[in-house]
This record gives sequence, structure tokens and C-alpha cells, in this order.
Amino acid sequence: MDNLSLKERDLKNIWHPCTQMKDHERLPLIPIKSADGVYLEDFDGNRYIDAVSSWWVNLFGHNHPYIKKKIKEQLDTLEHVIFAGFTHEPIVRLSERLVEITPSNLTKCFYADNGSSAIEVAIKMSFHHNKNKGLTKPYFVSLENSYHGETIGALSLGDLGIYKESYEEILIKSIKSYAPKDKSENETLKAVLELRKVFEKNKDMISAFVVEPLVQCAGNMRMYSPKFLQEARKLCKEFNIHFIADEIAVGFGRTGSMFACDQAEIKPDFMALSKGITGGYLPLSVVLLSDEMYDSFYCDYNEHKSFLHSHSYTGNALACAAANAVLDIFEKENILESNRKKIEYIGQKLKLFEKLKVVENIRQTGMIAAFDIKGFRSEERVGLRVYEYALKHGVLLRPLGNTVYFMPPYIITDKEIDKMMDIAYDAVSKLKD
Amino acid sequence: MDNLSLKERDLKNIWHPCTQMKDHERLPLIPIKSADGVYLEDFDGNRYIDAVSSWWVNLFGHNHPYIKKKIKEQLDTLEHVIFAGFTHEPIVRLSERLVEITPSNLTKCFYADNGSSAIEVAIKMSFHHNKNKGLTKPYFVSLENSYHGETIGALSLGDLGIYKESYEEILIKSIKSYAPKDKSENETLKAVLELRKVFEKNKDMISAFVVEPLVQCAGNMRMYSPKFLQEARKLCKEFNIHFIADEIAVGFGRTGSMFACDQAEIKPDFMALSKGITGGYLPLSVVLLSDEMYDSFYCDYNEHKSFLHSHSYTGNALACAAANAVLDIFEKENILESNRKKIEYIGQKLKLFEKLKVVENIRQTGMIAAFDIKGFRSEERVGLRVYEYALKHGVLLRPLGNTVYFMPPYIITDKEIDKMMDIAYDAVSKLKD
Repeated sequence: MDNLSLKERDLKNIWHPCTQMKDHERLPLIPIKSADGVYLEDFDGNRYIDAVSSWWVNLFGHNHPYIKKKIKEQLDTLEHVIFAGFTHEPIVRLSERLVEITPSNLTKCFYADNGSSAIEVAIKMSFHHNKNKGLTKPYFVSLENSYHGETIGALSLGDLGIYKESYEEILIKSIKSYAPKDKSENETLKAVLELRKVFEKNKDMISAFVVEPLVQCAGNMRMYSPKFLQEARKLCKEFNIHFIADEIAVGFGRTGSMFACDQAEIKPDFMALSKGITGGYLPLSVVLLSDEMYDSFYCDYNEHKSFLHSHSYTGNALACAAANAVLDIFEKENILESNRKKIEYIGQKLKLFEKLKVVENIRQTGMIAAFDIKGFRSEERVGLRVYEYALKHGVLLRPLGNTVYFMPPYIITDKEIDKMMDIAYDAVSKLKD
Repeated sequence: MDNLSLKERDLKNIWHPCTQMKDHERLPLIPIKSADGVYLEDFDGNRYIDAVSSWWVNLFGHNHPYIKKKIKEQLDTLEHVIFAGFTHEPIVRLSERLVEITPSNLTKCFYADNGSSAIEVAIKMSFHHNKNKGLTKPYFVSLENSYHGETIGALSLGDLGIYKESYEEILIKSIKSYAPKDKSENETLKAVLELRKVFEKNKDMISAFVVEPLVQCAGNMRMYSPKFLQEARKLCKEFNIHFIADEIAVGFGRTGSMFACDQAEIKPDFMALSKGITGGYLPLSVVLLSDEMYDSFYCDYNEHKSFLHSHSYTGNALACAAANAVLDIFEKENILESNRKKIEYIGQKLKLFEKLKVVENIRQTGMIAAFDIKGFRSEERVGLRVYEYALKHGVLLRPLGNTVYFMPPYIITDKEIDKMMDIAYDAVSKLKD
């Protein structure tokens, strides 16, 4: 087997996610044979630094001996059991640990398989909670430039045209509020004022406010101040609106703290987690919520207030074993502490990009660093040129439009950071050639 | 660790799917320590026949040596890689095989993580396809008594009140058509006539018709004739409406043929698969579709017709390894053939229930057998009494309302079938005591 033959076989039968397949007439489609640490290796023997952590899911590198071992042990014990009426030890332990490390008001875990489904759980539960109290509040508020997933409910909350513009007639009601464009006080204030206006105008109709704390990842890695989260949290309390923290991309250390909400010291009503939760091994998601929320659904069955959401593989034991292994690693290896030096090193390297005239808006939040390329029209797809150049030179970057970003696994070494960022530098430098 | 201590720890932090948690004040919540074949074993040493295949996902039993081995091998090679711009051998092979065994018009695979998300992919793609042709058709048609999942789009298509009645204001537009109540010609004809009326009345507004072929599983295992599918397929062609076959629960041999559509010899425009696809090991789902559908999105990126749906773990290599192992087993062990005898044996045993006065509507489609209990009000939750009795006697049945059903793993032996059905018989016999 080689790259070419696998690529041809793939293109015959597969439609890839988030991909215009015609692009692959020109762009490489790379079959990965194996992976280890930060490296992916294809069937022709080329190696690539996975600088996007395989869509922001991988934390501790590929082929991680400890996570692997724990999944294998679980395979020899219990792979899966129906999670209604039944339970198992890995999920009991995982839930205790998640409750322990998330904000203190979050005491219950409701599981699903992917990020979109977690968002659907949170908005359904928020709406249903109000319904149980006799209130019908069918609107949800989210930020401009936000992304919350791809199923109809989650998609309705997002604001990225390329993902949703074709579906307007089959989306549910959501209201967008101004998103802070950067970490400045001006932008923070403006966004807070706008949010208040939106809440005031629709106050009795809004079930929940949904937000990606600190970084709008799919929205070109736009970063903003924790101050906005604090003020938004206060506004939600004032207007009796649930605060849903979508930490799917930013949770598990990505922003420098275990959860992005920690930097704002806020207590959301719901926290949705996925991606890094299994270290990039298996699909799993969870929504954490409060006793108050839980209690409002707790009643005799015949009162018909039950929250009857389910997915077949909810609480999959193999995925839970991976998640427990991830939390073990966080504890044993003191990851947040060791990431601090890497964050600093990435920050230093990032400054070098100031020299490039086409670069603007250099920014960083924890293990996420980004900048924008200016002076090109979007049709020129300049990000794609960076992608191609980097691939040829052994680095998987995956710019979002004109935004180049780095979101590597936490085990990346300084030397690998050098390569990752030097190649990006070269790629951007050559753009005007 | 024992049942009691794990149950207490669980209830402190976990909200289970499809469960009124207050029920667990009285009902057992059973922590499973390990599982093997058709048996689940709890921490107190009790064993239960998994007669519901852990929510209809398990095909060849728990702790299956071959599936386990294949997942372990994959763990040592490649656990996961981003599935945009990249691919891997297990998914290339899996896709070739799925295209091979599904109806001949289905040539492309689009992957997701759970059944709900697969339905969302299909309806979005159907709607978007029309949009790309300049048509806005925002309605979807499904059958009364149907179930298609829990995310907002999928939930909108379903018709089971307990799952959706609290969400009416945040659902999308769907129209319900009469569902055949049984396999009789009368019911088939009535449902076909009603479907024609629905199509005629809304013809230019309907993107797709979504249906669970042969068995409405969550809808109390209602079974109907392949003839209905044939006629519905014709009607969809006549009215230019996409036919989406939701084979999530019925696919992979459950109805006696590899796919339920095979018995009607129809070619759906979309086929959604999940549950059994990994033999009950890991979450994975896929939508199969035609070249015509694929081609209609195939264009230059800047034409903005791309289908940009994605989930982080789309195409997870571990789940694909499990799915390939499942297809290996189907081939090597000639499962469809060996199931035939089991289907017959279950059918014979099922006849014994005719003796019970409270039993009606005895029915079977392949490896699914069911009957209804009459003479009790729904508030009496008579199914729950059967559930409790069976659990105490070592069988996990999970009646749907007043419907008792059997949907065991295919490796179940005649002796285990005896136990599963004898216990059910005893449970139902004792209901009037």
C-alpha cells in the first residue's frame, strides 16, 4: 500500500467532513499509516507534526502508552453496557473526577457521544427546565462569530455563514449578540452592553446564553477577555437566563487553566465537554449541570417531567477508560504546570511574526496561538497555500480562512515547536512570491 | 466494591439517559463489572442475559475475542487522525465493504458518531441538495409512531410524545403520515394512500421522507410489510422526494437480511447506519448515498455549495477497526444463515405466549420478537414490573411501555433463548397475581 493507491480507493467511496471534495483533484489527501507522539506518518514514509492536535482533540500525543494500556485493560473487562438502568465503574469514577475539577456548582454529569450532541442536551434541558416551570422560552442567545456544532440545534446557535447559510429555513430560533473582537477593555464593554440590550429586548423569551469561553475557535481563533465572561454571567443571573459554557474545544488545559471558565472564576449553569476528554482517542461528550437543574426534573414518572434524551453508546466504557487515563496523566505529570513553559516559549516565537508585513492580530491564549494574514481576498484561499507549503515541509497546519493557528499536543518539545513555527514563518514569508 | 456502594456513588453524580432518576429510589441501578457472550455480571456476582443487546447495539456478544483483538491491533497502529485532508486504511476498507453490501445505487460514505447525527447529516444533505438546485423544500415527512433520534433535527422527525412533546416550540417542520399498524394488506394500503395524500398536499415543500424499514423499534416494535417500503419508494420517485432509510436499529442482520431494505428490494437515496456497525463496541455512524447526490455538491470551493458538516472524531480509526471486524465475522461465520435457525426457534417459543390471556399482537421480524400486554393502564407501568421480575431472575428485558420484546445478540444459544423467553413467560403470567 502507498499514498496514491489508498487515496484513489478513498476517493471512490468516501465523502470527507468539512471538505469540498473537488479540492482533492489538486490537494493531497494523505493516508496516515501510523502515528506516534506529535508525528503522523503516511504510507510513503513522510512524517508530519500534528500542529492541530487532529482537530483539537489530542492532548498527550498519538500512540500514548498509558492511554493505550488503559483502553486495552478495559477491553478485557467490559467494553460497553446499556447505560439506562445499568452503570459501570469507569463512568462512576470519571463522573466523580469531573465534578471535582469543574466549578463547584456543577454536580451532575449527563453523557453523549460528540460535541454537537452535548450542546443539544444542554439547550433541550434548559428549555425543558423552563417548560417544567410553566414557562415557554424558545430563544437561545449566542455570540456573533460563534461555532457550537453541526446538528440542527447546535448549528442554529452558531454564526459562521459557511456552515449554516444554506439551512436557514430548517434552523431554530437563535439571537446573535456582538462578540468581543479582542481582549481590549473597549471590546469587552461593547459586547457586554450589546448583550444587555439583547437580554432586555427578549428577556422572557430566552432560555439560555451559549458561549465558547475565552476563544471562539472555529471563528478564526478570536480571543477575548475573561472579564466578558464575568459580566455575561452576571447578566444571565439578572435576567434569569441559563449560562451554557461550551468548553468542547477549550477545556482540559487548552487555554492554560483546566477549564477556560476558571480564568474568569465563574460558575456556568451548564458546561459542555468533549474533544480532549479522551485525549484524542475516542468520541465522548458530557454536560455538567447543577443539583438545582437535576432536582427540577426529579419527580414521579407519571408527572411526565423526565428528560428522556439518550444515545445508544452513551457512557461507553472504553471511552470512559480513556478519559480516566487522561485525568490520571493530568494529575501525575502536573500538566498545567509543565505547559506553562511551553506557552511562554510559543509566545516568544510568536513575536517573530511581527516582522512579517502580511501578518496582523498576533494573539495567544494558553496553548492556542494565532495570527491573521492580511492583503488577500478570501477567494485567493491564502490559508490553503500555507497548508500546502507546511504539509510539504512536514507540518500539519490547517488555517481557518486567513487565520493561521497553532494548537499542538501538550507533549510537543521546544525543538518541535521550532519546526512547527519556523515552517509556518517560511510559508507566510513566501506568500507574496 | 459491591453493587450498593457503586450505585450510591453513581447516583451522586450521574444523570442517566432516558431515565426518570426518581425511579431509582425503588428500582435497582445495576453496576456491571464484566460481560462475556450474552451475559452481563454485576459486582455482587449476579449474571443477566442481555436480551436487549445493550440497546440493540451488540451483535456477537460481549468480550468478543476477535473484535477485541482487532481494536487492540489498531491501538498499536493508529488510534485517530483528523479526517479532513487525511484518511487511513481501516476506513478506506470499511467504506469499500459498506458500499459493496448496501443497495447498488449507494456509492459514497459520510461518517458521524451516533445515530442522531447520521439522521442530521441525511436531512441536511437532502435539504442542501435542493437548495443547490435553487429549490427551498423545508419539510420532512416521517411516519406516525416513528423514532429517529434525539438531537433537534432528528427529534423533529420522530413522533413519540414522551421524547418530544416538551420541545414543540424548538423543533423544525415535519409532517407525520399514517404508519401501518401491522403486516396486513389493509394496513399497508391505508398507509400508502395516506402517504400519497401527504405528498400531494405538500409536494413542492418536502425534501425527504424518512423511515425505519420494517420495524419501528422505539415505537413499541411495530412491524409492517416490505410492500409498504416498495410503494413508498415509488411515491418518493413520483414526487421527487428523497427516500431516507433509517437502518440504525434494523441494519446488520437484525431483521433476518443484512439490511431491512433488502427484503423490499428497494434502493433508498440515503441509508443511515449505526448501533450494530461496531458490534456494540464503539460509537460510529455513517450515511450512504448515491453518486448523483455526491456530484451535486462537487464544484469549485468558491461556488459555495460544499457540504461542510463535521464532528471531531469523524472516522475514528478504532471504531472503524471494530466495524471491519464485525464484517469479517459476518463473512467468515455466515451469520445470516446461522441466524435463520435461531429466528425459527424464537418463533416457535413465541407461539407459547398465545396461551396467556393478557398477551396480544405477537409478532416477529428476524431477530426481533415482541408482544403487547393488554388490560392495564399505562400509569400502572406494567412493563416495569416485567423488567423487575426478569432482572431478579437473570434476564435483562426492557419493555417499551406495554410491549415486551426480545432482541438478543446473535450468538445466543437455544438454551439461553429458553431461559430468556421462559422468564418473560413467568413474568407476564404473574402480572394478575
